[in-house]
Amino acid sequence: MSDLKNRILASAKHDLEDIEIALKQNLNPYLDVVSQTASHILFAGGKRLRPLLMVLSARICGYKSNFDKTFSIMFEYLHAATLLHDDLVDEATLRRGKPVAHSIWGNSIAVLVGDFLLARALSIAADTGHLNVIKIISEITENMSQGEIHQLMRKGQLDLSEEEYMEIIQNKTAILFKGACQVSAVIADATEKEEKAISDYGFNFGIAFQMIDDLLDYTSNAGILGKEAGADLKEGKLTLPLIYALKKADSKADSKDLAMMEKIIKNKDFSADEFEILLELLNKYKGLKYTEELAAKHIAKAKKALVGVFKPSETRELLINIADYALARKY
Amino acid sequence: MSDLKNRILASAKHDLEDIEIALKQNLNPYLDVVSQTASHILFAGGKRLRPLLMVLSARICGYKSNFDKTFSIMFEYLHAATLLHDDLVDEATLRRGKPVAHSIWGNSIAVLVGDFLLARALSIAADTGHLNVIKIISEITENMSQGEIHQLMRKGQLDLSEEEYMEIIQNKTAILFKGACQVSAVIADATEKEEKAISDYGFNFGIAFQMIDDLLDYTSNAGILGKEAGADLKEGKLTLPLIYALKKADSKADSKDLAMMEKIIKNKDFSADEFEILLELLNKYKGLKYTEELAAKHIAKAKKALVGVFKPSETRELLINIADYALARKY
Repeated sequence: MSDLKNRILASAKHDLEDIEIALKQNLNPYLDVVSQTASHILFAGGKRLRPLLMVLSARICGYKSNFDKTFSIMFEYLHAATLLHDDLVDEATLRRGKPVAHSIWGNSIAVLVGDFLLARALSIAADTGHLNVIKIISEITENMSQGEIHQLMRKGQLDLSEEEYMEIIQNKTAILFKGACQVSAVIADATEKEEKAISDYGFNFGIAFQMIDDLLDYTSNAGILGKEAGADLKEGKLTLPLIYALKKADSKADSKDLAMMEKIIKNKDFSADEFEILLELLNKYKGLKYTEELAAKHIAKAKKALVGVFKPSETRELLINIADYALARKY
Repeated sequence: MSDLKNRILASAKHDLEDIEIALKQNLNPYLDVVSQTASHILFAGGKRLRPLLMVLSARICGYKSNFDKTFSIMFEYLHAATLLHDDLVDEATLRRGKPVAHSIWGNSIAVLVGDFLLARALSIAADTGHLNVIKIISEITENMSQGEIHQLMRKGQLDLSEEEYMEIIQNKTAILFKGACQVSAVIADATEKEEKAISDYGFNFGIAFQMIDDLLDYTSNAGILGKEAGADLKEGKLTLPLIYALKKADSKADSKDLAMMEKIIKNKDFSADEFEILLELLNKYKGLKYTEELAAKHIAKAKKALVGVFKPSETRELLINIADYALARKY
């Protein structure tokens, strides 16, 4: 597994370095506190997955100019802006193993620097000179806030359906990944077929990515994940592993298991022992397995979209490897 | 005075009605909580000043199509988004006499609905089909967040200079007014001279508008203003009346008056009596008079920019009346 990761990092080394430089240069001219707060979230070990997907998508679509890295950072800005606001909304304490921005600089700065990064992303979108790019970016931003609001309104509610969960993760995650890929097709002046293929890749990748994130929230631990396991549940967020297990336990009319799960979910201060019991029930009702399988299906779809349209190339290989790794990652 | 207001409202009646309809229609298709929260801030007796300025600017620049009202609401959205976030940042309790949104729906919803309105504004900007409009809007958004951050970082600090105050109010207020006017020139395909004139009008109007706002925070009262008098000071915001009075008291080396002002400023729980003392000192050192005179200069500049380029017309008359009223208003 770590072999796949190493291969990806080796292949993407130069792109990742260029993205890093573009990010640092772009933040330079701003107020100290803006740079500091933005840097805290932007340079805290992020994977640069969204900008990298954009750069690779541009390459596979035949983009010839030199602005791909500069443009790509709008996706890291959008991502960072939502992280700043979401950590506040979720009252999170840790992000990638470090204290969240609002606990250092206060809620106000977290809100305003988030707004600033959102605005910067939009300015970069405008710099592309493509109206379609701007439309994609503003739609992403609308969808992300609606996805987050939807999730927030349903917090702590046990009747969240799989369909609703899918709608939420599409809005809050998949559409940004899709956008990173689609924008590339637009600036590369790709064919309609290519644009659809790379968009489908990004969209399905994004769905799988969020599912695995939600899975890891149960199966990983703080040392690896950089935040507490079970954090989603403590915030009242029901995700697919639990949604599926609750449905299965309910359909089997096993009132004892169902009651136990509901009790642990409702008690946000659940103990480590209770969390272990919940994990056992998630396994018993195959919530974890189902989530992983569904994520795998979306990764397969993502790769199929790519392979169906683009010829074999180093870039295609890398996009496929990244998709495989998104599924197999442990953090 | 109320005669001028009545004349403005009579002349702008149809435009204001159309703006109201455009606002209501645009919010329809969204999640209930989004519509509710957004409506709370959008339909709480706002003056629609920014959209109205855009519609009138478009008309004076010769705009011929029918999308001016639809486009104009992006400025109300931008404004509402910043109000939602700023009330949170300022820990405000009242806005236009009503409880602020975050005290009803919670901080999270206020953050996320603010993000949503920001995104909607950008989507509408993209709908204009003009790259320049989008650039103006994204620059406004960047500037507004930077202005707010700047203000936040200097909260409670007594050494805020007039220059810094000017920079802050330009960023957080004047640039939005300028943008509302400038965008109209762009969509109306106005001449460069017209675009500059209407932009100058908006910019100077915005500066004066914020100065009068800051003045009214001292001279108005809760019943009229819809929030407590002295609210800015309680939030640690030093504005021009006080900045000027502090400088004058300092230059006269009147250590007793200066010490008294500083004492009251530092004590955020100042009593009504202390506030009265502060007001007397603001009068003694001409902080209120200076602010009003400087605002009047900017209104004069705004009108001069307009009159210098545009021929007499009903629309020009209305824009002039609005500028006069912004200066003379009591709330």
